[in-house]
Amino acid sequence: MEDCIFCRMGRGKQPCMKVYEDEYTLALMDIAGDVDGHMLVIPRQHCTCILDCSDEMLTRVTATVKKVAVHLVNNCGYDGVDLMSANGEAAGQSLAHFHVHIIPRRKNDGLGGRGEWPSFPGKTQEIPALHEKLRIK
Amino acid sequence: MEDCIFCRMGRGKQPCMKVYEDEYTLALMDIAGDVDGHMLVIPRQHCTCILDCSDEMLTRVTATVKKVAVHLVNNCGYDGVDLMSANGEAAGQSLAHFHVHIIPRRKNDGLGGRGEWPSFPGKTQEIPALHEKLRIK
Repeated sequence: MEDCIFCRMGRGKQPCMKVYEDEYTLALMDIAGDVDGHMLVIPRQHCTCILDCSDEMLTRVTATVKKVAVHLVNNCGYDGVDLMSANGEAAGQSLAHFHVHIIPRRKNDGLGGRGEWPSFPGKTQEIPALHEKLRIK
Repeated sequence: MEDCIFCRMGRGKQPCMKVYEDEYTLALMDIAGDVDGHMLVIPRQHCTCILDCSDEMLTRVTATVKKVAVHLVNNCGYDGVDLMSANGEAAGQSLAHFHVHIIPRRKNDGLGGRGEWPSFPGKTQEIPALHEKLRIK
């Protein structure tokens, strides 16, 4: 998948703000700027979405999601995370390489309360500065 | 967790509309009635959220999510799924037993387009009728 930007990131051919990486997966800052701390977890190997993701790769992706979530809560002062994944263009997926969104949340952060999905009010901090704060060192 | 409703469902002590079940996990219709086809996947064994979910259980939960997603697309006429999980009360989690929401999506279903998260406009069909249509038989 020469023209897939996430494949290129996975192969180190496209710069990105890495939060964590291992042999199979990558966590990076989402540059949409729609909410502070928005991250993505992707497999390095291409699959379109959960529907064609191998069970083995799915296990690796979700293990990385958990690792980053635990890091955000244990080491970065967050209280929880919202996880979201659009699978299929009909579901709103905008880039056809499987990815899971992580939205770090704090108590009373104003993004949405109990039982509500988070709003995306726009970033308030610079993404590179947040990257430096939030990455797994 | 005697008073946890998802634990009670997992032990068969609380009726629910099962979409799929195996030894470790359960997929069921969400009864919020906020959007047609809304389902949940839960582990039978209690954990609060992804943060305290064992790697093994996380693998089982996501395998069930994938199984249900593939079923919805291959057998039920859907084109994709949105997956969502709130982890921690600060993240909007309303019931403290790990659960993943599945929202089945169709092309042009009006719930939100490319790059947008789905809206929850309310159900248009009866949940028990949808349950009968959508469960894995």
